[in-house]
Amino acid sequence: MIGPTGGSGTPEARIEQAMRRALAASAQVHGSTSPNPPVGCVVLDAAGEIAGVGATAPPGGPHAEIVALHEAGPRAAGGTAVVTLEPCAHVGRTPPCTDALIAAGIVAVHAALPDPNPLAAGGAAELRDAGVAVTLGTLADEVARGPLRAWLHAVRTHRPHVTWKLAATLDGRSAAADGTSRWITGPDAREQVHALRSTMDAIVVGTGTALADDPALTARNPDGTEQARQPLRVVVGCRDLVAGSKLDAPDVLHVRSHDPDVVLGALRERGAVDVLLEGGPRLAGAFLAAGRVDRVLAYLAPALLGAGPAALAEAGVGTIGDIRRLQIDDVCRIGTDVLVDARPVAEQQEKGTA
Amino acid sequence: MIGPTGGSGTPEARIEQAMRRALAASAQVHGSTSPNPPVGCVVLDAAGEIAGVGATAPPGGPHAEIVALHEAGPRAAGGTAVVTLEPCAHVGRTPPCTDALIAAGIVAVHAALPDPNPLAAGGAAELRDAGVAVTLGTLADEVARGPLRAWLHAVRTHRPHVTWKLAATLDGRSAAADGTSRWITGPDAREQVHALRSTMDAIVVGTGTALADDPALTARNPDGTEQARQPLRVVVGCRDLVAGSKLDAPDVLHVRSHDPDVVLGALRERGAVDVLLEGGPRLAGAFLAAGRVDRVLAYLAPALLGAGPAALAEAGVGTIGDIRRLQIDDVCRIGTDVLVDARPVAEQQEKGTA
Repeated sequence: MIGPTGGSGTPEARIEQAMRRALAASAQVHGSTSPNPPVGCVVLDAAGEIAGVGATAPPGGPHAEIVALHEAGPRAAGGTAVVTLEPCAHVGRTPPCTDALIAAGIVAVHAALPDPNPLAAGGAAELRDAGVAVTLGTLADEVARGPLRAWLHAVRTHRPHVTWKLAATLDGRSAAADGTSRWITGPDAREQVHALRSTMDAIVVGTGTALADDPALTARNPDGTEQARQPLRVVVGCRDLVAGSKLDAPDVLHVRSHDPDVVLGALRERGAVDVLLEGGPRLAGAFLAAGRVDRVLAYLAPALLGAGPAALAEAGVGTIGDIRRLQIDDVCRIGTDVLVDARPVAEQQEKGTA
Repeated sequence: MIGPTGGSGTPEARIEQAMRRALAASAQVHGSTSPNPPVGCVVLDAAGEIAGVGATAPPGGPHAEIVALHEAGPRAAGGTAVVTLEPCAHVGRTPPCTDALIAAGIVAVHAALPDPNPLAAGGAAELRDAGVAVTLGTLADEVARGPLRAWLHAVRTHRPHVTWKLAATLDGRSAAADGTSRWITGPDAREQVHALRSTMDAIVVGTGTALADDPALTARNPDGTEQARQPLRVVVGCRDLVAGSKLDAPDVLHVRSHDPDVVLGALRERGAVDVLLEGGPRLAGAFLAAGRVDRVLAYLAPALLGAGPAALAEAGVGTIGDIRRLQIDDVCRIGTDVLVDARPVAEQQEKGTA
């Protein structure tokens, strides 16, 4: 239905719809593209119908635009490309996407975000020089909060993006007085955390958590089987792991330092862009004190303990004026629990940067 | 507009609309009626138009039905009374409302909830005997969660209803390491707490909080002036207050016991039905351990401290199997903060009862 206020049939609405489809395609590959950005692309034919959908392949494979153009085939001629990130104009491991778009006869490109990477930027200008109409900014905020968020952060700061996930009671505890903690949150929250892990490049815990809980740190399906995509598992701290424990494995990275920047440096060397910090309280405190937490995902169970380890230890705050303020991006209910998705207030975060 | 599925013009919808109006009227008097229930009543004339709205006056004054009938005057004849609680049939300090409804010529009564008080019950039967059509159950769940909640609880359990309000960071702390705590939550949450206080019969804190924070425990307007209605202020614990402190006043009740049932007994004697427990962590822990918290209002600030006093201390939970589970009634954002409104899971609550 096309209404007087602009329904789904207006050209703008069709482009936004295609951008949401491109964003969804990028979410499917989130976690498999680093150090490249997880991009999504939809190619519309000259009539405005979807002719191809693509997302970034693992490193060395084709970019999203190439996948979408391939699916569209000859229908791309005279068509429009809708893509979450400005198409690249540089020769990396693959040829520039701009050339491929021009060669396929694309006449218009809508990109949500400009490419902040100086090496790859210039795509819009090159397309315009070839006579392609280029529009930047479609659903920019929505796309920037999506799968590209960590990559954008890493390009800007030269550091991986750190998400701290905590699971706690309403009184902020992650275990009972005797150390037992299974389970504080419900099955829906736990399933969501496994899905989250599969989108990450690395999962980080401290040796304290590794020794106390012997976690596997794998992304698992509800039936307990491992998901196809597994992030790098990282243990941080000076203590040795117990021989035969789940993280005493050749594919686990053990960083023998508590300095967040040493940890992040080692992760960056491994190509990690999107990092999940899962605990424990001291490690999270060190990252927060250093201004190295970029997102907080707090899974809060409607439950109370009154005793037991807190979810967060010493984070460099001695008095209320130094409290670490966050701003909430989203609050939602996950099964019986509450998820608060927040990020540090910008000015405070800057305090922590060197 | 009257649609095929029943719009606002159907008789049922008009009754529900009137019930919501009655509920809103009862909210206006919430906090001023104990030990009587805060009831709301709307009288519709024979044409279905609102002819009168009333709510329970302070003890000794008229009940909601009488106020609404008075406003309706002769328009009540042939009309309908919509009331949040079954009209009383007993002579207390005022004559039975059933007699007044019959005398005014009311031909139909819709009540949300039956009166659980054996002394006052029987109103529906008496009305029916007089030829009035009585319907019970309109918006029953909504009304039961509203201003009548505490009174219904008190009739059932013979104890005041206890709401524990906490304000904490996402890591469950109510103050920084040096004890400073102003302010963890934002102005919107604090304003809401003052409005909440004005609906309560009593506000309870421990001597630890009284000595540490010297709180006034008054319900104040945003400009700092005191609201017209002030709850009884109660301090619990064996320590003396500091002479000249804000709670060292003749109108403050000091209960020199940590036993929640002793505290609640003293409050019941004073006619308190709806009690707000504001802290500190040890007092809240004692009430939780005894199964004497009926509602939890957790104001969570998107902020982290990493050190400092927890919002809740020892609550009788040593291992995860004994965790105190709550069920969430509502989660909402209040300004920059998050409010979780929850109640103990029923079976656990029963554990705590004697």
